[in-house]
Amino acid sequence: MDKIKLGIIGAGRIGRVHAESVTFHIPDAEVAAVADPFITEESKKFFNNLGVKEVFKDYKDILAKKEIDAVLICSSTDTHAKITIEAAKAGKDIFCEKPIDLDIGRIKETLKAVKEAGVKFQIGFNRRFDRNFSALKKSVVDGKVGDVHIVKITSRDPAPPPVAYIKVSGGLFCDMMIHDFDLAGYLSGSEVVEVFASGAVLVDPAIGKAGDIDTAIVTLKFANGAIGVIDNSRQAVYGYDQRAEVFGSKGCAAVENEKPSTNKISNKDAVCEEKPLYFFLERYMQAYAAEVGEFVSAIKNGKDVPVGGDAGLASVVIAKAAMKSLKENRPVKISEME
Amino acid sequence: MDKIKLGIIGAGRIGRVHAESVTFHIPDAEVAAVADPFITEESKKFFNNLGVKEVFKDYKDILAKKEIDAVLICSSTDTHAKITIEAAKAGKDIFCEKPIDLDIGRIKETLKAVKEAGVKFQIGFNRRFDRNFSALKKSVVDGKVGDVHIVKITSRDPAPPPVAYIKVSGGLFCDMMIHDFDLAGYLSGSEVVEVFASGAVLVDPAIGKAGDIDTAIVTLKFANGAIGVIDNSRQAVYGYDQRAEVFGSKGCAAVENEKPSTNKISNKDAVCEEKPLYFFLERYMQAYAAEVGEFVSAIKNGKDVPVGGDAGLASVVIAKAAMKSLKENRPVKISEME
Amino acid sequence: MDKIKLGIIGAGRIGRVHAESVTFHIPDAEVAAVADPFITEESKKFFNNLGVKEVFKDYKDILAKKEIDAVLICSSTDTHAKITIEAAKAGKDIFCEKPIDLDIGRIKETLKAVKEAGVKFQIGFNRRFDRNFSALKKSVVDGKVGDVHIVKITSRDPAPPPVAYIKVSGGLFCDMMIHDFDLAGYLSGSEVVEVFASGAVLVDPAIGKAGDIDTAIVTLKFANGAIGVIDNSRQAVYGYDQRAEVFGSKGCAAVENEKPSTNKISNKDAVCEEKPLYFFLERYMQAYAAEVGEFVSAIKNGKDVPVGGDAGLASVVIAKAAMKSLKENRPVKISEME
Amino acid sequence: MDKIKLGIIGAGRIGRVHAESVTFHIPDAEVAAVADPFITEESKKFFNNLGVKEVFKDYKDILAKKEIDAVLICSSTDTHAKITIEAAKAGKDIFCEKPIDLDIGRIKETLKAVKEAGVKFQIGFNRRFDRNFSALKKSVVDGKVGDVHIVKITSRDPAPPPVAYIKVSGGLFCDMMIHDFDLAGYLSGSEVVEVFASGAVLVDPAIGKAGDIDTAIVTLKFANGAIGVIDNSRQAVYGYDQRAEVFGSKGCAAVENEKPSTNKISNKDAVCEEKPLYFFLERYMQAYAAEVGEFVSAIKNGKDVPVGGDAGLASVVIAKAAMKSLKENRPVKISEME
Repeated sequence: MDKIKLGIIGAGRIGRVHAESVTFHIPDAEVAAVADPFITEESKKFFNNLGVKEVFKDYKDILAKKEIDAVLICSSTDTHAKITIEAAKAGKDIFCEKPIDLDIGRIKETLKAVKEAGVKFQIGFNRRFDRNFSALKKSVVDGKVGDVHIVKITSRDPAPPPVAYIKVSGGLFCDMMIHDFDLAGYLSGSEVVEVFASGAVLVDPAIGKAGDIDTAIVTLKFANGAIGVIDNSRQAVYGYDQRAEVFGSKGCAAVENEKPSTNKISNKDAVCEEKPLYFFLERYMQAYAAEVGEFVSAIKNGKDVPVGGDAGLASVVIAKAAMKSLKENRPVKISEME
Repeated sequence: MDKIKLGIIGAGRIGRVHAESVTFHIPDAEVAAVADPFITEESKKFFNNLGVKEVFKDYKDILAKKEIDAVLICSSTDTHAKITIEAAKAGKDIFCEKPIDLDIGRIKETLKAVKEAGVKFQIGFNRRFDRNFSALKKSVVDGKVGDVHIVKITSRDPAPPPVAYIKVSGGLFCDMMIHDFDLAGYLSGSEVVEVFASGAVLVDPAIGKAGDIDTAIVTLKFANGAIGVIDNSRQAVYGYDQRAEVFGSKGCAAVENEKPSTNKISNKDAVCEEKPLYFFLERYMQAYAAEVGEFVSAIKNGKDVPVGGDAGLASVVIAKAAMKSLKENRPVKISEME
Repeated sequence: MDKIKLGIIGAGRIGRVHAESVTFHIPDAEVAAVADPFITEESKKFFNNLGVKEVFKDYKDILAKKEIDAVLICSSTDTHAKITIEAAKAGKDIFCEKPIDLDIGRIKETLKAVKEAGVKFQIGFNRRFDRNFSALKKSVVDGKVGDVHIVKITSRDPAPPPVAYIKVSGGLFCDMMIHDFDLAGYLSGSEVVEVFASGAVLVDPAIGKAGDIDTAIVTLKFANGAIGVIDNSRQAVYGYDQRAEVFGSKGCAAVENEKPSTNKISNKDAVCEEKPLYFFLERYMQAYAAEVGEFVSAIKNGKDVPVGGDAGLASVVIAKAAMKSLKENRPVKISEME
Repeated sequence: MDKIKLGIIGAGRIGRVHAESVTFHIPDAEVAAVADPFITEESKKFFNNLGVKEVFKDYKDILAKKEIDAVLICSSTDTHAKITIEAAKAGKDIFCEKPIDLDIGRIKETLKAVKEAGVKFQIGFNRRFDRNFSALKKSVVDGKVGDVHIVKITSRDPAPPPVAYIKVSGGLFCDMMIHDFDLAGYLSGSEVVEVFASGAVLVDPAIGKAGDIDTAIVTLKFANGAIGVIDNSRQAVYGYDQRAEVFGSKGCAAVENEKPSTNKISNKDAVCEEKPLYFFLERYMQAYAAEVGEFVSAIKNGKDVPVGGDAGLASVVIAKAAMKSLKENRPVKISEME
């Protein structure tokens, strides 16, 4: 049984996460090469220790290698579209971190290139693969909540990223809530058709000065008549807060945060549990392995990928609509964004 | 020690609840009289068994009795303002069920009459006195969550009222979410300044035909910069769902539903607990006694009532703004409603 | 409808609890008289405020009153048997706080007197009426756990009583674990046939000097083959710890502590809930009302009382067997105690 | 950096678990060889896929290889002592699954051989490395519970093993509760000095016919004065039930079961969560990796192993004492077993 040979483009944090996942959890694949223009000696060593034989500066070297079946694009957001188009032309199957691009026209161009090349194209919406959100989705699909009436998602980071990052991030809706927009569609089983965004700068005035917000509530209307709401904060001092709830005609399914252990201490003051798992590396390690596992499985078995380019496009369109809504303080229809 | 003598106007469900609370839980007061134009023999017996000596058809008979210190107005909404004004003129302290009226002008007129008479005037926002929401409020006041950033309230009834009732109720925002609007101000420690309402008819088309909605999400902006969201449904098949969460710079405080017992059964299928307490009579019995207890205490000790007429006005204004927002599909400032 | 007229013998803490329960929660009964040789002015006022008209020093005055239907014996343990026998002869139905006596022969004599008089005789095992233990028992009776294999009970007080009290209490097994012995039989649906007791002095050496223990684990064997274990401590710094679990062929049912509210605070250190309700007055107020309510109902409807004298005898016999087991460091059969 | 080269002796379920753990989670080690007299083709393939190059029938072939640093003994219990002694003589560091042997003399002989050889010797008490029990232990060590008064451990398997296995297992105390005896010492920070065992055949009469029990409660006394209790069942229909609680002068720390997800469904019947993780492979995978990780780390850094031969001996002695206690229906001192 031949293993699928993967090339990782971008040797940063998420590239490393995927390299470890593939090596340790995905028996049907191996990381054959990695490319990063700024790769360090330390980073080379990391990949070598995982058994990755080829380390390049230029991702084109990966695209040029015939034996590489597919690429994982983990570089900075502004390079996703360009590299995807080139990889598609080189006939590689593609797993691309979100977002595809911050420009809707550019995303459509990218999807077109992928379609023409006939390669697989999966977007890195890792939360769909988290055991908790998966179980929630299954409850909905299995009819446990009946017709969906209300979807609620909470997503709060333990601490804001540097303001320098925020400036180039595309803003809270494109950088952070984009995951929740995708999850909202996934959990509701429908499409978002209208959004209304409220935002505030409550965590750090410097974020406001950089033109962004750090706290937001967005109301959603779905094509199937359901309604929803997402709340985000850049800073929850108790750690990564990732919860969701789907309420419907037959009941309600909800998932809570995961904790490092179930240990609970009762003393003279209170009864206390541990805080939630700190951040995405702690919380979503299992999800990262699962999403790439399904990508590899889709390639091996000639099936569709679980999260296609349409989902990548939809989430950015919703994020852009939310930005417009916030700016104009009015509900914005997704159809306005075309 | 003389007991405060109370007259109850309206012998329906909530009038009975207050009569029992006063008799069994409020040592400093007694129900001296009850009045209801449609009082039944069974109802008379109920009040007699509680030791209520005088049962009238006309509430004016209660207002005319000098020995009655205060009245609890538990009649239908459309009579609240009129009776309040008359009771104020008669020099009675007044506890009035929410809402004061569905017309803002009429509410202001009522507040004016109360003010001129110099009597106490408390509005029946019982949830503020629920042990759970009280504990949540205390966490906020004690600084446990720091500066408030996000307030979230969920309120779902176990089953919708009859459509006939819905038609005269003033609609979901005035009849049901009005409690949550009050709670939002209470928990945030600030005032709502803008609302955006999403609504849908998902539970019963007959509710839609009656001109109302049965499912809603309303986004709030507060004067202190915080933002909030309330979701309502007329039907949660698992019972009365009453939760709230206040998130801020130092943490998050949240309260869950109460259950009939802590019993948990693990079997071959799942690990199951009981459903929440069924509805408001089960969940808020303690709160009903506490609110009237504080009303009586305010009278005895010459203190301010804990929930004054302003709160009664504010909640109706917000509800009206939410109705306008839903109709016009745009955010509505509270200042527009003046 | 005539109310059952009750006389309360003993005006201490538990006598007051029952007086309030009857007045406020049991419409079919009233407290007609109270008797206590050491009754204070403050205490008289308390009972007068509840509407109790007759206050005596001598309980014989209560027994002499024909209109009194039944008595609640809330005096000190050493007087229970004597007063019960006299009350039985006076034809009163009897509710007696546990234990009937610390001497098994004396208990049997008491049961004989009660039987001969043909009056009702209920023992104050309040925990059976707690909403949580009731729900647990119902799970067992409804077959949710199948055949019972293991019963586990935890009972820990928030703080030890004064050593002076401990000296006359009959010791931890007769004073504290007696409730758990009764609960074990109740939950298992079987009888304890053998016990093995481990005990230690870990909370306060003064308790050891007084000849008692403050920490204990007792293993139980039941007639139906099931096994069980009870653990007790005189001091849980986090409050009253009252839990139980029944495990069987079809599953496991378990009940947890009750808390003042559901409020949960997440901050930079932990996620904390409130401590359990502090002690028996907070935790079992509902249970106290329920047990006397059922006593009154048994009288009114000519039914058997829910907890008869046999249960009162059995729990003391088990406690004595546990004392013997601890002393001789060997398992002791209940049949040895005859 | 040279990897520690491990040989796995025994290619059954636990041998495979360790092989995967080492390959995927322990960067400092590699499985260089495996030996099993009954190794199948399928099994060979499994190990080859993990990159294990040498597959032997005879474990002596592993002992003979100079480049092998250490062995993991995963063969049947009756071979543990013999292989350990030979491995020690061959100068290999040793990780041995529990129990070392069912005969105390034989265990002592084994410990002597290990000591004389000066090799490392770790016993496979995996539960100490479970994130939950580790957190509980840390709470105790950090003084969160103060002086330990009571230790409670619940361990119930989802289903009994085949009766054929039970016959050669050494019985419930040596095969199953042995883990809990070890955990009890670990959590209490003290040594068990006396046990009293209750046992019953409630799950399957065939287990009784085979001379064993399937349900047990064992009371423990510790050298530091604390007391404890363990309950075991061979069959919990809701899955693997693994909980523990340490109660002391400053509070109580407790750990619950782990679940596949946090998903909770509220419907018209109940509020339900998923059952606990099914069995040890699901629950303790993280613990298996952690224990071998610490073994490898001890070798690499010349430190003591975290669970030495003494712990292996102690747990069997306690199990034997429990057997004696059950047979003679009396408490048995550990000192009697010498």
